[in-house]
Order: sequence, then C-alpha cells, then structure tokens
Amino acid sequence: MSRVICVGLGPGDPELMSVRAHRLVSTARHIAYFRKAGSLGQARRIVTGMLRPDCVEYAMEYPVTTELPHDSPLYAELLSAFYEDWTERLAALARTEDVVVLCEGDPFFYGSFMHLHTRLRGRAEVEVVPGITGMSGCWTATGEPITWRDDVLTILTGILPEAELTRRMRDCDALVVMKTGRNLPKIRRALAAAGRLEQAWLVAHGTTPEERVLRLAEMPEEDCPYFAIVLVHGKPQ
Amino acid sequence: MSRVICVGLGPGDPELMSVRAHRLVSTARHIAYFRKAGSLGQARRIVTGMLRPDCVEYAMEYPVTTELPHDSPLYAELLSAFYEDWTERLAALARTEDVVVLCEGDPFFYGSFMHLHTRLRGRAEVEVVPGITGMSGCWTATGEPITWRDDVLTILTGILPEAELTRRMRDCDALVVMKTGRNLPKIRRALAAAGRLEQAWLVAHGTTPEERVLRLAEMPEEDCPYFAIVLVHGKPQ
Repeated sequence: MSRVICVGLGPGDPELMSVRAHRLVSTARHIAYFRKAGSLGQARRIVTGMLRPDCVEYAMEYPVTTELPHDSPLYAELLSAFYEDWTERLAALARTEDVVVLCEGDPFFYGSFMHLHTRLRGRAEVEVVPGITGMSGCWTATGEPITWRDDVLTILTGILPEAELTRRMRDCDALVVMKTGRNLPKIRRALAAAGRLEQAWLVAHGTTPEERVLRLAEMPEEDCPYFAIVLVHGKPQ
Repeated sequence: MSRVICVGLGPGDPELMSVRAHRLVSTARHIAYFRKAGSLGQARRIVTGMLRPDCVEYAMEYPVTTELPHDSPLYAELLSAFYEDWTERLAALARTEDVVVLCEGDPFFYGSFMHLHTRLRGRAEVEVVPGITGMSGCWTATGEPITWRDDVLTILTGILPEAELTRRMRDCDALVVMKTGRNLPKIRRALAAAGRLEQAWLVAHGTTPEERVLRLAEMPEEDCPYFAIVLVHGKPQ
C-alpha cells in the first residue's frame, strides 16, 4: 500500500525545509499542492528547481478565493466539493503510488491540508512530516525571542471579532496574529485598544528574499502585504 | 568577523533538522551545547554521528539543576555567572572562528540560548537558524491538527499557579503546556477543573524512538516522563 505524504515545507526559505522533507520532495514521482488559479502557488514556489524531471504535478486550484464571502453557503459547498474531488483522486493514486502533498509551514498548524486529512481517513494511508512554522520564521527575523521563562503565548487569527481580539491581546505576554491580510485595520485597532500597538511588529514574507520586518505602528495603512504575521514579544527576564 | 550561529535542531528526530542546520552542524569546526553535568545532553544526542572528526566540542554544563530552588538568589547568581562566563568564551572564539551553538527545537521559542543571546549583544555577531518546535513534533505524533480555521491556541508553561492555569485552559480552543515535568500533577488538576482533562494528550520524547503518545487521563500519576508536552486539540470544522 502506498501513501499520501503531506510534507511541511517550512516558512519559505528552501534551506529551512527539513532533511526528510527535502528528500521526499526531491525524489517524489507525484506531487500535489493547493494554489489560487492563475498563480504558481506559494508551496510550489518553495520547491523550485528541486523536482525530478519526470515528476507528475497535480495543481489543486481553489474553485473560488475572494469572489464570494467565506461564510456564504455557496462558498462552503464549492470548497467542500473541491476537497472531496481531490481526496478521491489522491486516494486512488495512493493505491499504487506514493504522492507527496506540499504544505507551507507546518501542516497541522492552521494548514489547508487538514481538509484532505479528515476526508482521507479510512481511504488512504497518510503520513505527515512537520515543518518549521511561518511564525517561527517571522519571530526569528525580528532578532528577538518570542517567549521567555513562564510567558503565556497566545496565537489568534485576525478573523475573530474586534472585541475578542482586544480582550485576548490584553491577557497574554507574547502574541502572534495569523491570517492578517484584510483584517489588518481591525487588528491594529484591537492592539491600540489593548495598549500594545507600540510593541507590535509586522513580518511579511519571513525568511524569503521579499522579507520585511516593520513596527506595525509605523506602517502606512494602505501598505499592507497579504502574507504577513503580527507579533508581540514576551517579557525579557 | 566570525559569528556565533545558534542552530535550532528541531524536535528530536535528526531528519527533522533543517537542510541549513544539517549543513552548519556537519561542517562546524566548533560546537557548543548546554547539558546537565554527567549526561550527554539532549541537543548533543541529536547530532550523533554528524560531526567532523576534528570538530572541537564545548559542553556548557549547568553548575546546578535541581539541587537548589529555582527562585533562590544563589541559584540565580550561579546561573548568571555561568552564562556570563560562556558568553565571554564564545565571544572570544567568534573573533576568529565561527562557533555553532546547538539548541533543541526552535531557539527563540522558550530556548535556553536566549541567556547567551542577550549577553552577546555588542560582543559578537549572532545568527539564529529557526527549527521545528518540540510542540510541532508532538502534535504531529498525535495524528491530528492542533488548530483549525479561527481557533485560539494558548501556550502555557506548567510553572504558572494552578488557578491561572485553570482560567486559561478554560479560555482557549487549542492548548499546549510546556515545562511539564514535576508540574504534571498540578497541570492535571487544572485541566480537570477546566473540564478539559478528557481531551488532553501527553506526548513524551516526540519524534524520537522513545516517543509515547498517551491520553493524560489514562496515565498513571507516578509514570511521568520528564520531557513531555501536554496538548489539547482545537475544534474540527
């Protein structure tokens, strides 16, 4: 029995992929990855130049990204059919061949692979290879530890309502905010209300040549990169 | 000018070290690592068989571990002198030679390197290479994602007072508890009070041959491994 192997690629720099991930990707006969239609895809970009010449690629293109509200029934239905379709195709392939699914960061940490993972249960053997998270890449880029001794680290997504963001930003030592993008104005307001805007950093494209490390308070509102993490360091001791 | 390069080794499996970490370690002329006196040391164990034959090793042995209470002035004084001494030695070495400091997991995530990092400022050029965190290795070992969509993930240490642990365990979706060890009975009581003990997993020595994945509620009180992480998964969607 062959397997579906989901490989965490790390934060972006190809050298930050694990030794095992590197070997699995560079010897793979079949790889699959999510991407927005019309783009190369972030995961695929990380493995540029690493694939066997005879590797077969399966680009799993989202049927919809920002065209529909994410809480609409149609959006949920389209995505669900899309994940179901690819689950079936990967499971069929894994009856005879290993297939490597590329995943940015760490697959089990807010990873898109989970939509396939839950559906593959009982239909294919699955292995997951952890990776360096995007947030590790980002806090390393700031040059300071994110957590010290007994710090509490809270990890939030910018999807949450503003009042909940504010409450939780007040009630932690270190903070990471994922899924910033269009939520950034709300995240800034919540940080300001929690009295923590001055301590906040924005790291975009951490560990890649496009990396930017900025104090969030000094960043112009309109200049908001999409792939970014907001973070506040814990208390040095 | 040479550098002090702190290399995150990942959760324990040598194959989960990054490609860059692997290259830096296997070509290093000087490596340093913390360890308890009389032990090989966890970080050193991960790189077994990887070092150059002429690599010079600097074992930074803690002057004290559990002999004194961690909040006593003498403990703080001994540790501070120890870190200061090694900072000076590494800074002197880095005037002419690169020296690689080994660090389990990710150096900037509750890593012991931070004690040298703060002291090296202005005294040596420092580079930090992120690694896969121990917690990523542990949640991957459970076979389930730790976080989904808009989950809040709280990362705590078992050092915190029981009432604070309980309060925070109630107020999150996913949970990771670091620094368990002798705090495990307190952590269990706090999880039970928060109504989350049944969902909690204990993962010891994640990604190594000694890996154990257990439901915390089913683990005998006395059978408590020292290197362990407690975790509760977020809500599937």
